[in-house]
Amino acid sequence: MQIAIAMFDQFTALDAVGPYQVLVELPHTEIVTVAAARGPVRDDRSLTFQATAAFDEVTEPDVIVVPGGLITRRMVRDRHPVIDWIGAVHPTATWTTSVCTGAVLLAAAGVLTGRAATTHWVAYDQLAALGATPTEQRVVVDGDVVTAAGVSAGIDMALTVAALIAGDAMAQTIQLGLEYDPQPPFDAGSPAKAPGAIHAPLSDWMRRREAALLS
Amino acid sequence: MQIAIAMFDQFTALDAVGPYQVLVELPHTEIVTVAAARGPVRDDRSLTFQATAAFDEVTEPDVIVVPGGLITRRMVRDRHPVIDWIGAVHPTATWTTSVCTGAVLLAAAGVLTGRAATTHWVAYDQLAALGATPTEQRVVVDGDVVTAAGVSAGIDMALTVAALIAGDAMAQTIQLGLEYDPQPPFDAGSPAKAPGAIHAPLSDWMRRREAALLS
Repeated sequence: MQIAIAMFDQFTALDAVGPYQVLVELPHTEIVTVAAARGPVRDDRSLTFQATAAFDEVTEPDVIVVPGGLITRRMVRDRHPVIDWIGAVHPTATWTTSVCTGAVLLAAAGVLTGRAATTHWVAYDQLAALGATPTEQRVVVDGDVVTAAGVSAGIDMALTVAALIAGDAMAQTIQLGLEYDPQPPFDAGSPAKAPGAIHAPLSDWMRRREAALLS
Repeated sequence: MQIAIAMFDQFTALDAVGPYQVLVELPHTEIVTVAAARGPVRDDRSLTFQATAAFDEVTEPDVIVVPGGLITRRMVRDRHPVIDWIGAVHPTATWTTSVCTGAVLLAAAGVLTGRAATTHWVAYDQLAALGATPTEQRVVVDGDVVTAAGVSAGIDMALTVAALIAGDAMAQTIQLGLEYDPQPPFDAGSPAKAPGAIHAPLSDWMRRREAALLS
């Protein structure tokens, strides 16, 4: 089973590495990190990864994982090559998945038209504008497309996909191996739970950052 | 504030990337990925990262993050260079942290002698043998040393450290930005919660894998 993890300049590292760490434990799995070209790919902060394949070298992956980042609005405007790649490989993929604003890239590729989907809370409007029906759920399975909310939600998404592929016992085994028994020190992980004094400035900052990336 | 994330051949990617994604959001932060030599570092599966500095180039980091992996038992046996680096930088670091069996490396460096600490559930015995007092908590703060349980616990650990460094409101802002409102599809993330039919074979597999890595 080939699992293709898309990478692009300024993606969010945990969006990709969370699902990777879950899905790599499935039996008979080959992971390929795929980008516009083989070689180094920088995330949106300080990490550099290696892409092991170019988009045109990965034509029939079984599972695709598309991370996000605040750069995705610009990528849609500029029709980044990952969008056409998603459109090309989705029809034959068993599972097409996204994390965070990776859903915006799926939507731009036409994959989410008329589907329920989720994304980072800052991007519900973008998702709707591209023809999807945003929900506020953490993980949404609609047919063969599975979308996750922001960044850390990729771990929950990947465990869901692992169970769909290999059964509940395998997914639970992976969960135990990763000791995924989350105990956040605060309960501020969603707009509904975080204090307004935190939500509003963060939302403003993210929108300003997106705007700066567009110019 | 310099945050040094240690990397070594066969480390577990999420151990490093979970805390990274939290700590990089702290104000005035420089992240350095540090290994035996600058250049590519392969994780224990399929990802390749770039180390931006060698151990001898990072002499006074403010925060250190040490990931783990099943390779750590061998690293202790062979006295991997990361162990001496930890011993050298810990005295001047504000926070010395580990994820998963990274705690075993801290212990081998003498950092955990007489301290309470945690690690992946498969490694409590190793930690005790190296002079620490293992607890079964997810995150343990003992003085200026903060240890986390297995793999995914690094996110909880880093939010704890973020609050210690920059206050609760900053940690909550980061949590909301990462939409860290975990909703695992199963409740199997600790030995106490996972079915015995899952725990025993996984534990056996991990110990066999560790043994293979020692030979």
